[in-house]
Amino acid sequence: MKIKYDLLKVEKNTKARRGKLSTNYGIYDTPMFMPVGTLANVKTLTPEELKEMRSGIILSNTYHLWLRPGEDIVASAGGLHKFMHYDGPILTDSGGFQVFSLAKNKKKDIIEEGVHFKSHLDGKKLFLTPELSIQIQNKLDSDIAMSFDECPPASASYEYLKNSVERTIRWAKRGKDVHSNPNQSLFGIVQGGAHEDLRKFSAIETVKLDFDGYSIGGVANDGESKEDMYKAIDYSIPYLPEHKPRYLMGVGEPIDLIEGVIRGVDLFDCVLPTRIARHGNAFTKFGKINIRNAKYKEDFSPIEKSCDCYTCKNYSKSYIRHLLVCDESLGGRLLSIHNIRFLIRLTEDLRRAIEEDNILDYRKQFIENYMGKNGNPLN
Amino acid sequence: MKIKYDLLKVEKNTKARRGKLSTNYGIYDTPMFMPVGTLANVKTLTPEELKEMRSGIILSNTYHLWLRPGEDIVASAGGLHKFMHYDGPILTDSGGFQVFSLAKNKKKDIIEEGVHFKSHLDGKKLFLTPELSIQIQNKLDSDIAMSFDECPPASASYEYLKNSVERTIRWAKRGKDVHSNPNQSLFGIVQGGAHEDLRKFSAIETVKLDFDGYSIGGVANDGESKEDMYKAIDYSIPYLPEHKPRYLMGVGEPIDLIEGVIRGVDLFDCVLPTRIARHGNAFTKFGKINIRNAKYKEDFSPIEKSCDCYTCKNYSKSYIRHLLVCDESLGGRLLSIHNIRFLIRLTEDLRRAIEEDNILDYRKQFIENYMGKNGNPLN
Repeated sequence: MKIKYDLLKVEKNTKARRGKLSTNYGIYDTPMFMPVGTLANVKTLTPEELKEMRSGIILSNTYHLWLRPGEDIVASAGGLHKFMHYDGPILTDSGGFQVFSLAKNKKKDIIEEGVHFKSHLDGKKLFLTPELSIQIQNKLDSDIAMSFDECPPASASYEYLKNSVERTIRWAKRGKDVHSNPNQSLFGIVQGGAHEDLRKFSAIETVKLDFDGYSIGGVANDGESKEDMYKAIDYSIPYLPEHKPRYLMGVGEPIDLIEGVIRGVDLFDCVLPTRIARHGNAFTKFGKINIRNAKYKEDFSPIEKSCDCYTCKNYSKSYIRHLLVCDESLGGRLLSIHNIRFLIRLTEDLRRAIEEDNILDYRKQFIENYMGKNGNPLN
Repeated sequence: MKIKYDLLKVEKNTKARRGKLSTNYGIYDTPMFMPVGTLANVKTLTPEELKEMRSGIILSNTYHLWLRPGEDIVASAGGLHKFMHYDGPILTDSGGFQVFSLAKNKKKDIIEEGVHFKSHLDGKKLFLTPELSIQIQNKLDSDIAMSFDECPPASASYEYLKNSVERTIRWAKRGKDVHSNPNQSLFGIVQGGAHEDLRKFSAIETVKLDFDGYSIGGVANDGESKEDMYKAIDYSIPYLPEHKPRYLMGVGEPIDLIEGVIRGVDLFDCVLPTRIARHGNAFTKFGKINIRNAKYKEDFSPIEKSCDCYTCKNYSKSYIRHLLVCDESLGGRLLSIHNIRFLIRLTEDLRRAIEEDNILDYRKQFIENYMGKNGNPLN
């Protein structure tokens, strides 16, 4: 079935909204953070662990799975869920962002038909088109597919962005025309940088194509400021339909989740919690900390006493530090569990704050804890 | 409390025996395979996963924990169990084998007092003595400590081995004299290469010191043949008391477990199941296979259909291969789970074969499956 979004409540003082997303694999509360499973696994973790941390949708990467193991192998396995032993909903991105960020030497040739670029693995010539992206996603059999879009850098000129936005809309239509998986929903992506008129144009034209949900893209590509990210959301949201989910792509900083929710966003994804885990970093209420720091050598308390994750219930900072210092991968695994659960707990808090109409107080308190008394979320 | 070994049954046609080992953390069946948790974790796995695969005792390495994080930190954490969140029994080795195998450039200076050598991490000068090894293990608070022994290479001369065995007995006594943890059992180690008289002498003299259990060492150091390993067991076992556990150190090849059990061994440990997992290898009834092999690309069956491990119940060879090829650590984790469970299942089979007095038939069938019709366990 296609996903269905039910709007339950809009917070009194902001655009923040509580909703329910009905999927092929159960009903989930929004706002929601989606952990990233690039290569058909959320790095180091099993699906059971994701369930234990009350994760909902996970994201997997079309570009990566196209290269390895290839969409035909995933299809032969019975689709991505069966291949990776995951019976929760999966969203696949389109590959557009990876073409932008991973193409060998970042060189690519964008033409109307699609994008020529070289594999980040072996330099092999590749050509990805809006149709091919959708066809691959159809075969992967994810629950939600994304339209193929161009992701220009923050430094792109207005003129460049205008042409790019127009092409992305033509690409979205071409992708929609070939989309043929009846159990898969398809999202359109709003682009346009930090330009109000481009975002408005992109949103209106994309919505005309009637997708099952809408993403706001181009806010976490390369060098976008926080200010530009918030602008991009503010300029896009008014033109998105109330009864479809809204997804801010590639965003996972705790404060950006709060700012996004307040502006009306329902879904987020980011590699941040697992990536920083591999470097020894943990989210806490009082900001990020690096567990490798010598000061945790004999700190036998958990990362966060109030956290209900498997890691915090069972392990000390001292032990996790020991694992990290010794390059034992269990260390990164334990930190990944905590960091993902941290963001999911944050969305649980935000849902409660929406119910209680006090999300602005919640933000104030969160920022004060996380960044200090004079913390500025724009930094 | 000290461990207690109850002999339940000796198999009709061999020396194989079923027993029960009562420990500070529950009662376990023997013969038993002990997974290795070098740095206070069985690589990539949690204690809960070890329990799910019905693992009993695990082994941790005194030398490694002495260097990182240091025994005082482990003691401050409340001991090794609390430090690593493991409420099953733990055996620590003495560091003797690591001094032999890991000392920088394998250079060491063995004197009566102990061994001078350099750290494998940073070349720092270290001096380990029988007393220090026991004192470190006392602080780690493992359930079973090992006496500090010398582990000479297979190539050592008879004369060298004779002196070494005598010194190891003196070291065992010195260690026992300083052992002061009332909840920790202490094992003596029989050495003597493949020489019948040295093994006999070592066993008799070590048993005179009255340990809580006995190990057979020096069978998996460096270049020992299978034949020498089996000889070492055969020459040692007759002199070990019936009502104490017998532990063959560093052995984990499936066929060696069978041969050891048939000769009267109760306990085994080895890094093999986790080490080969990291290189993509899996144990199967029909021999080891490398899951990275291209022929598994579209093999959607589990590693072993008859295996009850988490990995075989939920994942295909194709998926695990994909993870390994992409260097996703979940691949090694899934293989570690299967490989450890494989060896634990093997000990379960062996216990059943002892009950049913048909262990020789079991061996014959196992070798035929594992090595082919003309398989020779000595190869």
